[in-house]
Amino acid sequence: MDLTPVTPEFIDRLRAALPAAALRETAPHYLEEPRGRWAGQAGIVVAPDSVEQVATVIRESLAARVAVVPYGGGTGLVGGQICAEGPAPVVLSLERMTEVRAVYPDENLMIVEAGAILQDVHDAAEAVNRLYPLSIASKGSARIGGLLSTNAGGVNVLRYGNARELCLGLEAVLPDGRIWHGLKRLRKDNTGYDLRDLLIGAEGTLGVITAATLRLVPRPAGEGTALMAVDSPAAALKLLAMARDHMGEGVSAFELMHRMGLDFLSEALPDLRQPFDIPPEWFVLIDVGLARGLDPAEALETLFAEAFEAGLVRDGMIAQNEAQRHAFWEVREQIPEANRRIGSISSHDISVPLGAIPDFIEKGARILAGLGTFRINCFGHLGDGNLHYNVFPAKGRSRDDHVKDHDAIKRAVHDLVDRMGGSVSAEHGIGRLKVDDLERYGDPVKLSAMRAIKSALDPMGVMNPGAVLRRSGS
Amino acid sequence: MDLTPVTPEFIDRLRAALPAAALRETAPHYLEEPRGRWAGQAGIVVAPDSVEQVATVIRESLAARVAVVPYGGGTGLVGGQICAEGPAPVVLSLERMTEVRAVYPDENLMIVEAGAILQDVHDAAEAVNRLYPLSIASKGSARIGGLLSTNAGGVNVLRYGNARELCLGLEAVLPDGRIWHGLKRLRKDNTGYDLRDLLIGAEGTLGVITAATLRLVPRPAGEGTALMAVDSPAAALKLLAMARDHMGEGVSAFELMHRMGLDFLSEALPDLRQPFDIPPEWFVLIDVGLARGLDPAEALETLFAEAFEAGLVRDGMIAQNEAQRHAFWEVREQIPEANRRIGSISSHDISVPLGAIPDFIEKGARILAGLGTFRINCFGHLGDGNLHYNVFPAKGRSRDDHVKDHDAIKRAVHDLVDRMGGSVSAEHGIGRLKVDDLERYGDPVKLSAMRAIKSALDPMGVMNPGAVLRRSGS
Repeated sequence: MDLTPVTPEFIDRLRAALPAAALRETAPHYLEEPRGRWAGQAGIVVAPDSVEQVATVIRESLAARVAVVPYGGGTGLVGGQICAEGPAPVVLSLERMTEVRAVYPDENLMIVEAGAILQDVHDAAEAVNRLYPLSIASKGSARIGGLLSTNAGGVNVLRYGNARELCLGLEAVLPDGRIWHGLKRLRKDNTGYDLRDLLIGAEGTLGVITAATLRLVPRPAGEGTALMAVDSPAAALKLLAMARDHMGEGVSAFELMHRMGLDFLSEALPDLRQPFDIPPEWFVLIDVGLARGLDPAEALETLFAEAFEAGLVRDGMIAQNEAQRHAFWEVREQIPEANRRIGSISSHDISVPLGAIPDFIEKGARILAGLGTFRINCFGHLGDGNLHYNVFPAKGRSRDDHVKDHDAIKRAVHDLVDRMGGSVSAEHGIGRLKVDDLERYGDPVKLSAMRAIKSALDPMGVMNPGAVLRRSGS
Repeated sequence: MDLTPVTPEFIDRLRAALPAAALRETAPHYLEEPRGRWAGQAGIVVAPDSVEQVATVIRESLAARVAVVPYGGGTGLVGGQICAEGPAPVVLSLERMTEVRAVYPDENLMIVEAGAILQDVHDAAEAVNRLYPLSIASKGSARIGGLLSTNAGGVNVLRYGNARELCLGLEAVLPDGRIWHGLKRLRKDNTGYDLRDLLIGAEGTLGVITAATLRLVPRPAGEGTALMAVDSPAAALKLLAMARDHMGEGVSAFELMHRMGLDFLSEALPDLRQPFDIPPEWFVLIDVGLARGLDPAEALETLFAEAFEAGLVRDGMIAQNEAQRHAFWEVREQIPEANRRIGSISSHDISVPLGAIPDFIEKGARILAGLGTFRINCFGHLGDGNLHYNVFPAKGRSRDDHVKDHDAIKRAVHDLVDRMGGSVSAEHGIGRLKVDDLERYGDPVKLSAMRAIKSALDPMGVMNPGAVLRRSGS
C-alpha cells in the first residue's frame, strides 16, 4: 500500500479539524536525534492536547494515507522518532499532553499523559512520598509516551523492572483511529490478550500511547550507596549475589564500570573528582534502599567486610551522606558524557545471560584486538546483564580515522552477543538503526508473527513506517 | 472457515507422524473440569514429548482444519481446557513434557517444559535455595504451560507479580505450526513486539507454550506470618499501607477474610482448629519475608503494636514457629474447600481499584440484599485488589433452591465491578465461561484488536476455538 506525502490539501483538512494551537512550526529539533545520524522530514508537525485530537490526526492521516511519526522527548538513540525516508509524514508530538491526571498514593499508582516529562513524574510521585522508579540519563526531557513505547530501562530495572513492568494500563489511539480506553487501576486483570504490553515496546508502529497508569512504589526508609573495587567481572557477579543474599530486593542498582571509564572522565571531564586514589581495574556502584530497622551504610559495611574476607573486593567506600551518594552517582552518570566527548567508533547496547558476562567481556576484547587497536569502555547495568559496550579509537586518534571500521566492529560484537544467547538491543529498542540487526539476529518465526500483527492492526502501514519493521516493498 | 472433526484418516496420519506413546486413551479427566459445568469432547488425545512433536500435531491439524485444545493440569476454572461444542478436536496434553531443562541459581532463573507441575518447579527452585514465587491452591496438579497461558495469580502477586511478570522467555508453537525459539535468559531485551506477553494469557488461542524461562528470586532470610483482626476492609487497607511502610517489598502476602469464612470452616470442616476465640468481623493474614538483620516475628510485633495504637487492629496473633505459620495459612487455604462443600450460587473472581474495595463490599452487600437472602463469603488477595466474592444460600437452604437466582446475582456483581473500573476476571481468565462477560464489559476497541490479532496469527481458527473469543459465525 503506497503512502502519500503531506499535501497542502491535507494540511487544510487538519487545520479544519484541529484547534489552531495544535498546528506547530516545523522546528529543527523535531527532525534531529541525539547522535546526529539522520535528518528527519515532516510535512507538518501537530501537537494535539487531547486523545480525541490525536484520534482525529490518525483518522485524517489514514484517510489520506499519510504516515504518522509519534514524537515524545526526542531522546531516543535508535531513530524511532525520525523519518528520513519515504513520503513526508505528519510528526505527532505529545508535548501538549503533559497532565498528571490523578495520583493515588494509597494505591501506589498515578495516571499521566504521554507527554509528561520523566522528571516531572518523579516529582509528582515524590510529592506524595512515593517513587516512580524508572530512571535514565535523559530524565529531564524524555516523555512517558516515548519511554513506554521503547520499554525504557535504566539503572533501577534490577529492583523495579523496566517501563513495561511499571505500567498497569494505557489509553491509546490504534492505527484505525479508534481510542482504546485501558487506563485501569488494577493489579490483576485477566480479560483477554495483553494489548498493553503489545503497544509497550512497539515504538509507535501499532498506535499512539496517549496516557498511562504508572505503578509507584513506597520510598525505601533509608538509602545508601557504595563504590567497591573488584578484580574482575566474575568477582562483581559474586558480589552481586552476596549483596542480594544480604539485602534481598533491597539492592536497587548494581552498576559495573571499568578503569577506562575513569580514564575517560579524567581525559574529557578533568574537573570531576576521581573517587579512587589508585584506579581499580573494575569497580561497581551499589545502591540500596532498605526497610525500617536497617541502616543502609551499616548494611553496606557488613557486605564490604564479608566480601573483603571472601577476596571479592579490595577497596571500597561507602557514602556517609547525601552529598557523597550524589558524588558516587556522578561518576556513573558522567561516563556517557565523557564517551560522547571522546567519540565512539561504535556503541552497543547489549545484554547477555548474567553468567556469560565475564566470558563475553574476555572474548569481546580478544575479537576486537584482532580488528585493530581500540579502547573499550564497557560499563552498565550488571544486575540486568545489560552492558553498554562502546569502542573508541586509541588515544591521540579520532573516530574519523575509523569510519571504515565501524561496520566490522559492530558486526563482530553483535555476532558474539548472538552466539551467547544475548540481545543486540537490551534497552534502546530497534527504531530505524537496528532494523537490519533485528532481521539478522531475530527469531524468524517471531518476525513473521510481528509482521502479521502489524498488517492486522495497521493494514495501510501509516504508523511510524520503517521503524522496527522494514517498510513493505523497501 | 469451517473446522472439521477428527476422522479415522486424521488419526492415521497422526499415528504415522508421532511415536506410539504420544497417542493416548481418551480418559475421562481430559473431558471434565473442576466445577463440572461442561462435558468436553475429544476426537483424540495426544501427548507429544517434544516441541517438534507438538509442531507436527499443529501442522497436521491445520492441514485437516481440525481444532486443537491444549491441555495442562486441567485445573482451570473457566473452561479454557474443555471444548464442548463444534467438531471434535484434538486434545493436546503437555503431560509428557515435564522436564526441568536447566536451573541457573546465579542468574535466578530456570528453564522448564510446559508440562512441569508447579509443585515440582517449587521443589527444583528450593533445591538450589531459590524461590519460584507463583503459588496457587492447585499447585500439586497445575502445569506451567497452563499457568502461563492463563497468567495465573495467587497469593504472592503483591510482592512478586503474576505468572507474566515471572516469565522471561518462551518456546512455543504458533498456529501455523512453526516453532518460536524465545527461551532467552535475559532481563532486558527490546528487540521487537512483545510476543511473549501476547501468548501469556492467550489461553492457548494463539499457540501452544512448550517451555518457559522462569524468573526465580532469592529466598528471604526469614519469614513470618500473622493473623490480625480488623474492624473493616478500610482498616485492612490502612494496615496494608502501614505494613508496606514498615517492611517495603518484605510484605509477601496480605489476604483479607470475613467472619463468614470462619463460619463456613466450622460448618464444613469442623476439625480445623479456629484461630480466634471470638471470631472477628474481618481479619487479615499477613506473610512477610525479610532480609538479614530483621526478625520477622519482631517486625510483625512492632507492626501490630503501632496498628493497635492507631486503632486499626483489635486482636492478633503472630506465628512463633513453622507449625503455627502453617496453621494460619491452613485457615486461608481451606476456605475454598469449605465453600465448595457448602456450594455457592455464584462465584466471582473480581478486582477493583484498591481504594474502591470498602465501597465495593458495602454496595455489593446492599445490592444482593435486594435480590434475596444470601450469605456472602468475600475473601482474597487484598494487596492486589482481587476478591473472591462468592454468594451462598442461607443456612439450611441449598444452591439447588437458587438456580434461578444465579444469573441475576452474577449480573449485579459484575455490573457493580464494571461501574467501579474493575475486572470481571482478575486471575482466572476468560476461558469459555466468561466470553459473554468479555463482550459485555470489555473495551470494544481492544476486543476488535484482539479479533484482528487472532485472525492474523490463526486465520483458520484451529487453536482452542471458542475460548476467549467467540467462534466466528457462532
